[in-house]
Amino acid sequence: MTDDDIALAHELADAAGAAIRPWFRRPFLVETKEDFSPVTIADREAEAAIRALLAEHRAHDGVIGEEYGDDRPDADRVWVLDPIDGTRAFVAGRPLFGTLIALMEGGVPVLGVIDQCIIGDRWIGGTDHPTTLNGARVHARACDTLAAARLGSTSPFLFDPADLPRFAALRGQVADTLFGGDCHNYGLVAAGHLDLVVESWLKIHDWAALVPVVTGAGGVMTDWSGAPLRQGSDGRVIAAGDARVAEAVHDMLAR
Amino acid sequence: MTDDDIALAHELADAAGAAIRPWFRRPFLVETKEDFSPVTIADREAEAAIRALLAEHRAHDGVIGEEYGDDRPDADRVWVLDPIDGTRAFVAGRPLFGTLIALMEGGVPVLGVIDQCIIGDRWIGGTDHPTTLNGARVHARACDTLAAARLGSTSPFLFDPADLPRFAALRGQVADTLFGGDCHNYGLVAAGHLDLVVESWLKIHDWAALVPVVTGAGGVMTDWSGAPLRQGSDGRVIAAGDARVAEAVHDMLAR
Repeated sequence: MTDDDIALAHELADAAGAAIRPWFRRPFLVETKEDFSPVTIADREAEAAIRALLAEHRAHDGVIGEEYGDDRPDADRVWVLDPIDGTRAFVAGRPLFGTLIALMEGGVPVLGVIDQCIIGDRWIGGTDHPTTLNGARVHARACDTLAAARLGSTSPFLFDPADLPRFAALRGQVADTLFGGDCHNYGLVAAGHLDLVVESWLKIHDWAALVPVVTGAGGVMTDWSGAPLRQGSDGRVIAAGDARVAEAVHDMLAR
Repeated sequence: MTDDDIALAHELADAAGAAIRPWFRRPFLVETKEDFSPVTIADREAEAAIRALLAEHRAHDGVIGEEYGDDRPDADRVWVLDPIDGTRAFVAGRPLFGTLIALMEGGVPVLGVIDQCIIGDRWIGGTDHPTTLNGARVHARACDTLAAARLGSTSPFLFDPADLPRFAALRGQVADTLFGGDCHNYGLVAAGHLDLVVESWLKIHDWAALVPVVTGAGGVMTDWSGAPLRQGSDGRVIAAGDARVAEAVHDMLAR
């Protein structure tokens, strides 16, 4: 990962935002995908815009994208894209969706962008590039116990029913829980405003960009057992600003 | 309610925003109130700013505010204030909280403002003042069935446990459910981006401003039985963009 990759990542996020903004709060068709998640022309145009730039500037890198599938997914360098994470929020005119752009090298995410193109919140972090929010260095905050932790999670109904009791137990131990938010919650962990996010069913395009943003701000991001997220991870993720909170959550959820 | 009241409502919202913005994503103490909801210095300074203007310009009107209680609550004209609806979101740095300002005459809300001072979303609606979003007229959208409706609700855990099965049944019938959002969801109904919001435990300062915004855009806002919201309502509210959806929800929830 080079400074050129970081510059390109900004360009990719700019292009996605330019594709998305004209559709925000405008009429469009909402289609339902096989997994029952919604998709719109804005998702497709944003991913197409990113892929066009990658084809121009990184013709040999692989691309894994939510809407247009895999090109050279076994390349050493692979860009992982979710043009609109939180399409439900986008469809409702709520400016808390985000464009996720990651670069993976040897299967490890080394660069990540979370971009909210309506509010103008752009987090970028990576190896040797501490996380910034709109150019300013951000830091996850200290939180010594679960009882003091503020938890974010998009929806309790996105958990496997078998996992719900463990999530309910966790919710009973933290200071407070905030629903909704999608990828934006992970940015708030990186910026020191939330302590914890716990979710499941995340696919690689959902989590790849989040890992460098959270870890580059001093946070921890793993699966529920505490293992690093890798292609093939089961999609159950936690992000914590403080390793002590992460450890407490692993103890509760890995059972 | 006069044009002067509308001009003053804008001034009140401006003053609240000016009090809140300096605290957004800054360090502050989060206190927990008797009802376990959080409160911050931003809530208090915003309500104080509004009350100072009301004391100057409407010395004889009553005021009911979330943070500083009641002054002349039995006056014919009463301003009802929630300086930060969605304090949990504010505390997490999520720009989806809102300042709620209502004017009630004879116990009926005749003017309402929902102001999101970070994004810059200001809905205002009232008797003889069709709802606008940032000055542009907005309309709730048509939706003929529950099956087509997109539902918003801040959290499933804000319902009384006895109401949860009915909320679950409703969630099973709608097209999609989006959590989080607080008062902003009601603005999205008024703007034709969401079809339905169902919540409970709303106090008068939570709902008074929402009613004119939703109804002034052609929507419906009532309690779960379909009755108008009045002081003393039980706090279970629905807002729907289309009366057919409202009716279907009343049939389900009033049982």
